[in-house]
Amino acid sequence: MIKLVLSDIDGTITDSRRVLSSSASEQMRKVQDSGVIVSLVSGNVIPVMYTFRTYLGIKAPLFAENGGAMIEDNITQFFNMDRPMAFFRDLEKKGLVKGIMTNQWRLCSMGFEPVGPVEREIMQLSAQYNVEITNSGFSWHILNVGQNKGFALHYLMERYALRPEEVLVIGDNLNDIPMFIEGVRKAVPANAEEELKKRADYIARSGHGAGSAEILSSLESF
Amino acid sequence: MIKLVLSDIDGTITDSRRVLSSSASEQMRKVQDSGVIVSLVSGNVIPVMYTFRTYLGIKAPLFAENGGAMIEDNITQFFNMDRPMAFFRDLEKKGLVKGIMTNQWRLCSMGFEPVGPVEREIMQLSAQYNVEITNSGFSWHILNVGQNKGFALHYLMERYALRPEEVLVIGDNLNDIPMFIEGVRKAVPANAEEELKKRADYIARSGHGAGSAEILSSLESF
Repeated sequence: MIKLVLSDIDGTITDSRRVLSSSASEQMRKVQDSGVIVSLVSGNVIPVMYTFRTYLGIKAPLFAENGGAMIEDNITQFFNMDRPMAFFRDLEKKGLVKGIMTNQWRLCSMGFEPVGPVEREIMQLSAQYNVEITNSGFSWHILNVGQNKGFALHYLMERYALRPEEVLVIGDNLNDIPMFIEGVRKAVPANAEEELKKRADYIARSGHGAGSAEILSSLESF
Repeated sequence: MIKLVLSDIDGTITDSRRVLSSSASEQMRKVQDSGVIVSLVSGNVIPVMYTFRTYLGIKAPLFAENGGAMIEDNITQFFNMDRPMAFFRDLEKKGLVKGIMTNQWRLCSMGFEPVGPVEREIMQLSAQYNVEITNSGFSWHILNVGQNKGFALHYLMERYALRPEEVLVIGDNLNDIPMFIEGVRKAVPANAEEELKKRADYIARSGHGAGSAEILSSLESF
């Protein structure tokens, strides 16, 4: 029986333009009201997760910056800004990236937009700084090593003493793979990347938020 | 004909527990898609308004801190933090208030929770500091004089060259009164304070988000 649902936000409970899906958010609340722990993990920042917590009425802790920070009644920071900031400053100095608006609210990662076709160069440089680069499908992030959605999942499983088969994860993009771990149930909306579809127990008929609403409405089948 | 809708958030497009109303947010998007400018103004902070902008897909500028700051592709700050912070620090020193989580993201206002029945004492002290105190129904705020929802409304009317009768405002609480100005159309959900109902051109049959959805779905009648 599923006791925890951990879902991505962008592309998963939104539409393709990032607008929140009413059907997915209503199904999330129904699942929560039935006694299942519902949590979200995103590359976005703590105050954005504060907004989801407040305005979707989610009770469990939510994770920002790909798992690097957590909000419930208080904020917990699991990683720090030293390495992401050092790498970001170097990339900026080299003219390879521009910052993004949410950087002013970040605690342990930096977001960027590549200036031209420089992704490969950035990836190569990242090794020297011992940082990881991810792309949520909506923006690029510089993270500490080990700061990923799997970290958030392990935190929740330990906190609530859950076995893998009691957990359902939902995601659509490559940065969701670290939470697609052995033994947990995995579901994806139809727009998910092939790499995720290959690992999924269930692929929804619909894409984006409508697909996730479909998944959330048939939780007993997992 | 209504060309601009400016709405409050808490209690107006949410339910009584502050959870966003799907029907209100969907009607807002329909109104926006029909070519009407849709904007929101709240006592909450810029990154919360960033979240509404991104995840509700709203195109017009949105206003945080009761009109004190605005977000579109950039952030504009109309007031500063000097007086609100000085007053907050004094209240804190006197043991009359506790800060709130969103204060770390504020630019020109401070939120607080009164410690005990001290509202009248706070109101009296506020005059010395030349600040204003408001309550959104969900939290208390210290603001600069003139920093209110009417400021946001006047900004939008000037920017888009609108006459009062081309504007509809929607709100439910006392801090919405500054935007209930002469000549603009005014609508309230059924839960609105009496002071707002008295001023309203239309009182919805339903309360909260359902009432605002009702208002937004009959825009042609204003």
